Amino acid sequence: MERDLDAIMISSLVNVRYLTGFTGSNGALVVRPDGADILATDGRYTTQAGAQAPDLELLIERGCATALVGRVAETGGDRIGYESHVVTIDGLGSLQTAAATNRSGVDLLSVGPVVEALRVIKDTHEIEALRAACSIADAALASLIAAGGLRAGRSEREVGRDLDNRMLGLGAEAVSFETIVAAGANSAIPHHRPTDAVLVVGDFVKLDFGSTFAGYHSDMTRTLVLGPPADWQREIYDLVATAQRLGREALIVGASVVDVDAAARAPIVDAGHGAAFSHGLGHGVGLEIHEAPALSALGAGRLAADMAVTVEPGVYLAGRGGVRIEDTLVVGTDGPDLLTMTSKELVAL
Amino acid sequence: MERDLDAIMISSLVNVRYLTGFTGSNGALVVRPDGADILATDGRYTTQAGAQAPDLELLIERGCATALVGRVAETGGDRIGYESHVVTIDGLGSLQTAAATNRSGVDLLSVGPVVEALRVIKDTHEIEALRAACSIADAALASLIAAGGLRAGRSEREVGRDLDNRMLGLGAEAVSFETIVAAGANSAIPHHRPTDAVLVVGDFVKLDFGSTFAGYHSDMTRTLVLGPPADWQREIYDLVATAQRLGREALIVGASVVDVDAAARAPIVDAGHGAAFSHGLGHGVGLEIHEAPALSALGAGRLAADMAVTVEPGVYLAGRGGVRIEDTLVVGTDGPDLLTMTSKELVAL
Repeated sequence: MERDLDAIMISSLVNVRYLTGFTGSNGALVVRPDGADILATDGRYTTQAGAQAPDLELLIERGCATALVGRVAETGGDRIGYESHVVTIDGLGSLQTAAATNRSGVDLLSVGPVVEALRVIKDTHEIEALRAACSIADAALASLIAAGGLRAGRSEREVGRDLDNRMLGLGAEAVSFETIVAAGANSAIPHHRPTDAVLVVGDFVKLDFGSTFAGYHSDMTRTLVLGPPADWQREIYDLVATAQRLGREALIVGASVVDVDAAARAPIVDAGHGAAFSHGLGHGVGLEIHEAPALSALGAGRLAADMAVTVEPGVYLAGRGGVRIEDTLVVGTDGPDLLTMTSKELVAL
Repeated sequence: MERDLDAIMISSLVNVRYLTGFTGSNGALVVRPDGADILATDGRYTTQAGAQAPDLELLIERGCATALVGRVAETGGDRIGYESHVVTIDGLGSLQTAAATNRSGVDLLSVGPVVEALRVIKDTHEIEALRAACSIADAALASLIAAGGLRAGRSEREVGRDLDNRMLGLGAEAVSFETIVAAGANSAIPHHRPTDAVLVVGDFVKLDFGSTFAGYHSDMTRTLVLGPPADWQREIYDLVATAQRLGREALIVGASVVDVDAAARAPIVDAGHGAAFSHGLGHGVGLEIHEAPALSALGAGRLAADMAVTVEPGVYLAGRGGVRIEDTLVVGTDGPDLLTMTSKELVAL
């Protein structure tokens, strides 16, 4: 264990899940070098924690993190690491009090995102969970289109609920995030919440959605046109499709995340739409819908094999409409593994 | 402004929403004594922020909080408050760096949950939003039962999706949380996630669910029996119903939250089931599904008029089944205002 820590306190619930399998809404974990880890949760989850993490010592206490720090301090732990990107200023104060109540001289030391650093690289089971989540989303969209679910007269909300139900019916445990259905001028709002606005012939319809499977999130965006596309629609669609292809092709082991973003951004900037691509190219995806690495001009670091990321350039023309095309992929030495398989040809319904 | 602060940085997104109406997924707010508040968000939300908070100065920058601190420091702010229950240890480090980059001598000072303290007391619009959310949940459950949706042979997941769709069809903007449908022995798990387990005659079926309306959450639990209840089922149902009534009756302006919890807990403890009521009595509800005050032996403070809370005692008998009955109510000088109207008589389907 780094820096001779006696224990690391894991407060992030998703990190607790990653390390233990426990999925309750309140919990914390102490990891110790001798393997005598302890999972804390409250009384609502006693049964569940025992079933999901049968090999761990269990501590039932509503204030999980403070109880765990108290326990470690009481059993002689002098140097306890904590997640400084998760623990709040007040939270650290509580941990310090809990430690001092049990014994003086206990140091709480920042360890930062050590678990997130592990989570960036997906193992085979994680990749298969992501693939299953993506394949549910693919099948749901195909069935929505086949059933005529994308038609003039339906509201964004109706389309979103229909798509969500198809994902759940296909075995999704949940939706990854609130499904975005953005029609017409609303498609120019990158993160639009579905409204009662009705789809109209000639509209762009942008769908950004995903499902979770075994805790892992899929993320996909497709933009379609209701009826024959106008020239301006075809033009920005082709531009975004080109950018997205260049982004996928830039997913090379060892590439800097800044360069990947730049590769996809270049044609959009060259076409004079740089300001209309108002977000980063993509993000890591796994137990969280947004996790490391960020594929962005503001990101840092390089790609490694078995990182799962999205590639999602967009061009948004306020008042007219916008296009985003997004896939979830896994970086690999033989090129990226595309998990979202829906065609990216311009579909005119 | 307290302690002569030049500004308070609001980092909690739900607090930003409460103060400004902005609902994006990235944002921060600076509140200043002269009213020159600034809302920061990133490029995805430029249009939305302008529409939702038209009177505020807008700063578009991905690192919202650091950009705002930089701006305040640059314009002469020396004493900047921050939410110490929200800002992480690493986050405070970034804010300090952002301040120091612009000017030396800027102090960042903990202000704690000042906005949450405001949010505890609901105004008329908030209460009406809560009432609408509760009434959608009531209507959805009534329609589920009327349609025969609670019947042997359906899975917990099917029932949950059906109930969710009825809420969304009735105008819910979302579900408040993942709907709990727990049948048979699963009803003894307080926070059970729906599975493919099938409802069987003789089962308890516990439904804990809610909808959101204008951002406000409803929360209700009902436990029914499929077929004629057995004696043990009637017995624990009546016990929990009594506890729940006592809890509601204890919702008096000025009552301590500890006493409210104790009032409902007493009959359960007297019946020898104290250990089987493994959680607090209830919680505040509003823009978040769980917010202050906690009605719990570990809570603190007293009830005031226009606090919105849940009252939800339960008894869970591992391997057999459990009962929870929960309402959402608003504390008032003439007694609580019951927002969830579904009957609490034992329903045998």
